[in-house]
Amino acid sequence: MSGPEFPMSCPLPTGDGETVQMAHGGGGRAMARLLDTVIRPAFDDAELDRRHDGAVVEVGGPAAFTTDSYVVRPLFFPGGDIGTLAVYGTVNDLAMCGARPLYLSVGLILEEGLPLDTLRRAVASMRDAARAAGVRLVTGDTKVVDRGKADGLFVNTAGIGRVVAPAPVGPAAVRSGDAVILSGDIGRHGMAVMAARENLGFETVIESDCAPVAAPVLTLLEAGVAVHCLRDLTRGGLASAAVEIAETAGLALAFDEAAVPVRDDVAAACELLGLDPLHVANEGRFLAIVDPADVDRAVAILRDHPVSAGAVAIGEVRDGPAGRVTCRGPLGVDRVVDMLSGEQLPRIC
Amino acid sequence: MSGPEFPMSCPLPTGDGETVQMAHGGGGRAMARLLDTVIRPAFDDAELDRRHDGAVVEVGGPAAFTTDSYVVRPLFFPGGDIGTLAVYGTVNDLAMCGARPLYLSVGLILEEGLPLDTLRRAVASMRDAARAAGVRLVTGDTKVVDRGKADGLFVNTAGIGRVVAPAPVGPAAVRSGDAVILSGDIGRHGMAVMAARENLGFETVIESDCAPVAAPVLTLLEAGVAVHCLRDLTRGGLASAAVEIAETAGLALAFDEAAVPVRDDVAAACELLGLDPLHVANEGRFLAIVDPADVDRAVAILRDHPVSAGAVAIGEVRDGPAGRVTCRGPLGVDRVVDMLSGEQLPRIC
Repeated sequence: MSGPEFPMSCPLPTGDGETVQMAHGGGGRAMARLLDTVIRPAFDDAELDRRHDGAVVEVGGPAAFTTDSYVVRPLFFPGGDIGTLAVYGTVNDLAMCGARPLYLSVGLILEEGLPLDTLRRAVASMRDAARAAGVRLVTGDTKVVDRGKADGLFVNTAGIGRVVAPAPVGPAAVRSGDAVILSGDIGRHGMAVMAARENLGFETVIESDCAPVAAPVLTLLEAGVAVHCLRDLTRGGLASAAVEIAETAGLALAFDEAAVPVRDDVAAACELLGLDPLHVANEGRFLAIVDPADVDRAVAILRDHPVSAGAVAIGEVRDGPAGRVTCRGPLGVDRVVDMLSGEQLPRIC
Repeated sequence: MSGPEFPMSCPLPTGDGETVQMAHGGGGRAMARLLDTVIRPAFDDAELDRRHDGAVVEVGGPAAFTTDSYVVRPLFFPGGDIGTLAVYGTVNDLAMCGARPLYLSVGLILEEGLPLDTLRRAVASMRDAARAAGVRLVTGDTKVVDRGKADGLFVNTAGIGRVVAPAPVGPAAVRSGDAVILSGDIGRHGMAVMAARENLGFETVIESDCAPVAAPVLTLLEAGVAVHCLRDLTRGGLASAAVEIAETAGLALAFDEAAVPVRDDVAAACELLGLDPLHVANEGRFLAIVDPADVDRAVAILRDHPVSAGAVAIGEVRDGPAGRVTCRGPLGVDRVVDMLSGEQLPRIC
């Protein structure tokens, strides 16, 4: 295994024993104190310090706009936590729109009794993640609900980016014959969270792949690669993303299972839990669907970035049947791949 | 009382008995069906129908950006519900930035077991409110948490608007001598929610003032009124807003209690519950702090709009002491007004 040591449990032992109270959400003095002592100093942005109802920002062109709420359990897990997820998840959605991520909003829903140290740790993670991703946390909101009416901490982020793709990026732009590139190995985020939640004692600690992916995407676009669609492989995994693209585009998508990288420890954990790695969530992996003429160049560009060093072409887009995704197995037999059904991996992000 | 009849209770009786399941948040087939049958048809926006990770929008100038989460209990109350709140609350925050509201994102956190009819009703409210406010719901996210880990439904909205104010609007622009205008009577939203939550049998039904206020704000700006600061009077009420402005501006603010409109039924309900109307939340009221030369014109403009027909000048900004807000009572005695302390009115929005 690699990476630093990290604490596994949540809630954390608190330094001062202070916890979130209902008054912290009341819009009065206690809330002002929480914002002044915990939130604004952590995020440290001039727009937040204006203490106004919103931020004023410059986009300078067409804007990408996206949002996600984060309800992951546990709040902290190997390779990340709810704070890193909340920043990278939304930043990555902006990148998937062919945009350079610029600004984030943060909405916190706190459960009464949450240790303030847990909150401090989560907002510190958000700040660090925002710096790593080159975005500013410019506006926010904090609500408190009574004990038993939330699960410690829920986070919503919304994001704005500047669209840099010269043509629309999305399922509607996908063409038959396009090449399908996967940015790296799959399944780590889902397995890291499951292992932490269920206290599964795998031999190695699987760390989430949680990471910002805008840098390689922007390099693809700057290099003039004809990027038709981008999709990060979060809830529902590679399979659900591929099916949704195929259904929306009205085309078929075929890929080679042997070409999809899955680490041995992830594959073993999936087998143990009866999960298909194609359905397991990732937080730093994406599909890039590009013009076939650009595939080698695109893979080479992605491999130049650490976050997508494992990029590989895995398949192609075909005329039809519309919405069908197939995967060629090791014996050369095609199987139909569908979206995740049921609830194998709840609250994974 | 005025206004239509409305059901008071929540959760609602369901038509088909269907409820939210964990799989509705799993990123797979069940979630796709929920989005395709409940969410996208209700919001009916071309950007949502692209089924991509975000929306691409045009702002065409400096952008205002804001967010709020909504955890109001009960979900439905006289004069509004969590859906109307989630749209108007964020639209109003954009207006308070001197901006024309344009686009909203919606993040839903659903509790397992929530009747789908409750969700349908909330999203229908959001759609209607968005139409009334002239904004588009262009991107969203849905998460599900297990039974007992949320309280039915939490909603986050973030919003983008185009800044139309010619100069920065906010506490930093407030000057000594500025006039303080209140847009109408206060206390209705907080009392409406409290009455619905506690089943208080007041003689009249108090309806929330929940409404979009961008129209009068934009008219002020278009008319060239020197608007220095705008602030909607949500959590913490008029008192907390005034104190926060005074503290941030480093100035004092003085107003006349007799000039502040409070309906008789609201005043009676506040007295019964031991609440000061100055601390009670509103969802369609704001302060406009303007150059004193413009006060009469500003009040006249506001009165031309139904949502601010009760606008009145209530006081002025003074040199100091910094952060002090005072209120002159009926006997001519000034009292110091502070932010709400404690937790008188939890989960009011």
